[in-house]
Formats: sequence, C-alpha cells, structure tokens
Amino acid sequence: MANNMIIGQSGGPTRVINQSLIAAVKEAKKHPGIGKIFGMKHGILGAMNEDFIDFSEVSDEKLSVIAGTPGSALGSCRHKPSSDDCAKIFEVFKKNEIKYFFYIGGNDTAETVHIINEIAVLNGYDLKAFHIPKTIDNDLCVTDHCPGYGSAAKYVAECFLGNELDNRALKGVKIDIVMGRNAGWLTAASALARFEKDSGPHLIYVPEVPKSLDQVVAEIDEVVSRLGRCVVAVSEGIRGEDGELFAKKFSQEVDSHGNVQLSGSGALGDMLANHVKLNSKHEDLRVRTDTLGYAQRSYPDTVSEIDTQEAAGVGRAAVKFALGDHRSGSVYIKRLADDPYASEAKLTQLKNVAKVTKEMPREFMNEAGNFVSEEFLKYVKPIVGEMTEVGVLF
Amino acid sequence: MANNMIIGQSGGPTRVINQSLIAAVKEAKKHPGIGKIFGMKHGILGAMNEDFIDFSEVSDEKLSVIAGTPGSALGSCRHKPSSDDCAKIFEVFKKNEIKYFFYIGGNDTAETVHIINEIAVLNGYDLKAFHIPKTIDNDLCVTDHCPGYGSAAKYVAECFLGNELDNRALKGVKIDIVMGRNAGWLTAASALARFEKDSGPHLIYVPEVPKSLDQVVAEIDEVVSRLGRCVVAVSEGIRGEDGELFAKKFSQEVDSHGNVQLSGSGALGDMLANHVKLNSKHEDLRVRTDTLGYAQRSYPDTVSEIDTQEAAGVGRAAVKFALGDHRSGSVYIKRLADDPYASEAKLTQLKNVAKVTKEMPREFMNEAGNFVSEEFLKYVKPIVGEMTEVGVLF
Repeated sequence: MANNMIIGQSGGPTRVINQSLIAAVKEAKKHPGIGKIFGMKHGILGAMNEDFIDFSEVSDEKLSVIAGTPGSALGSCRHKPSSDDCAKIFEVFKKNEIKYFFYIGGNDTAETVHIINEIAVLNGYDLKAFHIPKTIDNDLCVTDHCPGYGSAAKYVAECFLGNELDNRALKGVKIDIVMGRNAGWLTAASALARFEKDSGPHLIYVPEVPKSLDQVVAEIDEVVSRLGRCVVAVSEGIRGEDGELFAKKFSQEVDSHGNVQLSGSGALGDMLANHVKLNSKHEDLRVRTDTLGYAQRSYPDTVSEIDTQEAAGVGRAAVKFALGDHRSGSVYIKRLADDPYASEAKLTQLKNVAKVTKEMPREFMNEAGNFVSEEFLKYVKPIVGEMTEVGVLF
Repeated sequence: MANNMIIGQSGGPTRVINQSLIAAVKEAKKHPGIGKIFGMKHGILGAMNEDFIDFSEVSDEKLSVIAGTPGSALGSCRHKPSSDDCAKIFEVFKKNEIKYFFYIGGNDTAETVHIINEIAVLNGYDLKAFHIPKTIDNDLCVTDHCPGYGSAAKYVAECFLGNELDNRALKGVKIDIVMGRNAGWLTAASALARFEKDSGPHLIYVPEVPKSLDQVVAEIDEVVSRLGRCVVAVSEGIRGEDGELFAKKFSQEVDSHGNVQLSGSGALGDMLANHVKLNSKHEDLRVRTDTLGYAQRSYPDTVSEIDTQEAAGVGRAAVKFALGDHRSGSVYIKRLADDPYASEAKLTQLKNVAKVTKEMPREFMNEAGNFVSEEFLKYVKPIVGEMTEVGVLF
C-alpha cells in the first residue's frame, strides 16, 4: 500500500479554512511515510467521483498564498453522504491506496468522517480518519472555540463599530441581523465594538435567550429615551418565549394581510425595523437595518491573528496525530490561558463532535438577556484580537 | 472682529470624513490669524442652535485618533436649511465673530455654503465660505473623484473578492446590491475584485446603463452556462430602458399579487434573486443575495491610503485657500498622473458643485453595458490601492 493521503473541505467557507488545509498539506509533505497528497474537489463529491488534485504539483509559494486566501480552495459541498455514498467513497479510497483521510468542516463533516471510519474498521482496512474543525458559527462541541469564528467575529464587531460611529452622527435606531440560526456566538461578538460606556451595540439578542417582540420594542425604547439613539445586534435565529422564530412570526403576521413575500435575505431585518417603528413610543423614530451577509465568512481584508494561527495549528496537528498512535478523531482547541492567551490542539473521539451543536452558555449573557456578560468578553477578546482604534469628540 | 472659524460635517458619514475635519483644524491651529476654532454639532443644526465644541480644548493626540475614526465626529444632519434658516445661521456667525466657515459634505452641502455666502456678500459681511467635498457615491462635479469614495470602493471590492472565492467553492448565482441610487461609481468598483480571467464579478449593472429584466436574466444564464456559476454586482439604482427603477417594477409586480411589503433594505436583492431563479433557463439554480449596508461608508478595518491622504489634503487646502485671496469656493481634487499616482487640491466656484450630480461616463462601461471598461479600471485602481492577495488551486 502506497500510504496516500486525501484531504477535503466541506460546508460554508471561512476566512481561514485554507490555513487548515495548507498547514496539513505542508506538514504531510515533510513526512516520507506519506505517499501522494490528494485534494478532493468539492468535498466528499470529489471523493465519490475521483475528482482530485495532486498537491505535489503545487509550489510551496503558491500554497502559502492560498493559505491566506478566504474561501475553500478545494471547493466545498453541502452533501451529506448516504450509506451507499460512504461505501462508494471507501471503494475509491481502497483503489487509490488512501491511508490518511482528513476532512475539514462542521459537525456534519465530523459525522461523515465517523461513518467512513466505521466502514473501514468493519472491513479491516487500515484508514486513519480525522476531522479538522471549522465554522464561523462557533457551535462545535468539545473545542473551546472553532477556527473561523475569531475572524468572522472580528468582521461582525468592526461592522458594529462602524454602525455605532455612524449612529452617533445621524441618530435613530440601527438594527443589524447577524448569522447564526441556532447559536448566538457571532451576534454576541458585536459587543467588542463597545469602546466606552453607553456606546453601541446597546442591545444584543441571541437565539439562546427568548424574547417577546414587546420586550424588544420596550428595551429599544428605553435606550432611545436615555441616549436618543440605539444600535441593536439581532441573531437571525432570534425567537420568542414560545420557541418560534421571529422570522416565522412576521411571516404569519404578514400572511394575514395577504402577502406572499415570506422570506429572503433582508426580510427579518426589514420586518423587525418596521415593527419597531410602528410600535415604538417614540414618534417618527428613524429605524434603519442591515443584514450582514456572506462577508461574515469571506471578507478578505479582516482576519484575526490568533484565528489564523489556530486554524493552521489544527490542520498541522491532525497530520501529526495521524502519524502517531491515533487511528481517528476530531481535533479541538484547548484554551490554556487567557492573558497572555495560549492554546493547544488536542484530539477527541469523532462521536463527541458529530452532529451535536453547542449553544452559548446562559452565563455568557447578562441577567436581562439583552447583552453579553463580562465572562463572555473575557472568552472572546483574545481570539478576536485588537479592534480598530477610534476616538470621539462627544 | 475676532476672526473665529467654524467647521461642520453634513450628510452620510464616510470612512475618512474625519481626516478632512481634523486636517482643517490642525492647519487652522497653525495660523495666529485665526481666532477660536469651533465645531458645529450635527452640521448646520449646530450652527442654528449655537451648539458648538471648541477645538482648543481637544488635545492634538486625541485629534489624531479622531482623524483615523470613521463616522462624523462632529455629528451630522440631513437638514437642507431654508432661507430663514440661512438668515439665522448668518446672525449666529455675526454674533460669534465667525470669519471662516467650512462645511464638509456633498452637493447639498455645497449649496448650503453657497447660499450662506451670498447672504454674507449681500450684507457686506467679511465671510470666507468653503465647501470641502466628501461622498462615497463619488457623484460630485468638477473633482476627479470624491474623498470617501476610495475607501468605500475598497470595501465593496473586498466584499466581492470574498464573494467570488465563496462562489467558487459552492457555485450558483450570487447577487450583491451596492449603494448609489443615481450613479454607479461604487458598484463599478466591484470590478477590482477580478483577479484573473473569468473570476467574478462577472456582471456589473449601474443606473447609467438601463437594462431590461429579461436582459439581466439572459446575461446571468450565459455566464452560468459557461462557468457553472455567476457573481453579479447590482446598483440599488438599477433601472429599465423606460427609466423605471427595478425596485419600483418589483413593487408593482408584487402589488398585483396583493402584497404590502414594498420596500426595505433587502427587498430589491431578494426580489431580483427570486426573479432570476424563476426565469432562468437553468433548473434548480442556487441564487443568493446580499445587500451591502452601512459598512460601505463606515467599516473601520478597511481604508484606502490615497483616500486618507486626499481627504486630509482637501481639509488642509480649504484653510489655506481661505487664508489666501479666495473668498469662497469648493475644494476639488485634480489628478496629475496615474502611475505613480499624483493629485493636487484645487478650488472651483461653489455654484459649479452645488446641487449637481456627476454620473459615470458611458465609456467607463463596456459596450454591452454589463461590466466596466479598461478606462474605468485605470481611473479607479490608484485611488483604491492594493487588494488583498489571493490564490486559487483551480
């Protein structure tokens, strides 16, 4: 057997997922025990169709530029392989004498690695199968945080810093919708924009802490009464105490008026802004909204330094674990210290990460459930890094 | 008369409008001929209400930090003063012995300066009245380009670079809506994201070149047929050959189905994406959309170096012109050379800038009217600066 290696990327790209890819490839190139190094195009679809690239044909210089490039350089997919697919992938691995299998992605990706690993075990095939974590949503279990989150969090926080400065100048209410359907990690990071007492964001709403629409309006009104303005961070997964998404509530409300337009990228923000405007106790309130988009996961000009290092670190560590005694596993980040910040890459079993989602702990939000706690700030600051320095006249 | 100075900011903030403010203040501090230096809070509203700050109370160190801060540090307004307002402002100027008046903003701001200047002339009052240009829309006349545009253009181009890399990984059609209701300058800047042949954005639509919805769908279909994917930059002011905004067309279309939701920050993108999906010849086309928001004018972590220098330059120049023989005027940027890039700040009459809007010349777009020309790229590259370096595997 030629002891070849294959690596792929899955799910939504991030600012640093190529750091993990390239670090793994560069580490593998150092070890003569590893044969060819294949990249599967568009994730597991490339494995099924034998659509590979050969990393020996890519110069080290080019690899270094790709490491710093957002997006998934191997292409990605959102395909959850069936058991038939997994059997097929296993056959392709056998044919190509693959001994080392690395797959970079979220909890579905971990699940895919888990299934393929089980098939290899059943067949007595010597496969080393490893999951390398990534997600801007920061919702993987076991790991302290996910590669990709720090850079996305920095982008979100810088957006809110800009919003805050803009809102000081022109007043009114500004609501921004942030990605994260089931977990509020990314929305919570907006808090890093607060550079002095009473600067925005003034309110933060996450899926983990349900709120009624009336509460949201009342809390915005209170801030407007006090400061004459309000900047609000809202998770796309914001929901009521009945567990129903605001996005769904609005759809129904709008439905009863005979509307068809139920969803869309800007719909939640637009409908929430409209609701606040109509129900606020402040007359003629200027309410504006933006829905942060794909730039959260792909904006090239903003990156967290620690995120960059750790994304490369988990890629490198996966190869080292595979060359050691480990047969399979999911790499995770263990935080060692906050100040100065330190972490190390460790290994856990695939089943601990596969499929499950990690929500924000309640203590990462304040008691009122409308802003983060000091504990969260301590957690998030080192992995995001320094914000742009700003000053104000009044 | 104490020869005092007053300065204000108006309209939408930009990434570098504080560079102009602080450069003017620092320049003024050097000249003993200038008495007190006041900043009017929230533009002309602060002038009407005598709501000033005194810049002598702000340290040079703090001024330097504020120069690098997005947003309008003095606060802004969108108030177009009536003739009564202008008369009142003139009285406040007299009372406070204001000799030097600087107002930073777009063409409405130039108009305000123009009117107040005329009142001063009529009253035989020795006022030096100057407009300092800013706008991310780049639609002021006379000037080669506007301070604020280069940084906003860089943000937009970086967003599209991220979109392109994301779209390579997951395919489909990605449509981003860009600010600029009447001029396509900012949308056109997305072209800077194209780092190799056939990389996105693949299509660019601006208000200056009308398109039918059928044409847009056909052009997207052609790119998808050829590349399997398509990244599209669309100005919020996109309109048909009948001159009607797409945003309006969709509203009417939706109206006939009994809908109420006619507008909102994400509505144009959502409706256009839906239209493309329904009318494309490609089945099950994945179409996604984002509407770029206030981050275009306020994102702190991205700035053009030339824009920074020129924004400071026009602020400084305004004070120098005012101390020279000039009684009034609007500062503009004259391009001296493309490579290496060089420019200088010059002065034109207020009436040449007041109220009028500069559209993109037709030759800045290609013949098909769906991408920019080489001429535009030559124009825009130096004022935006280097993009983030990226690399791809295939």
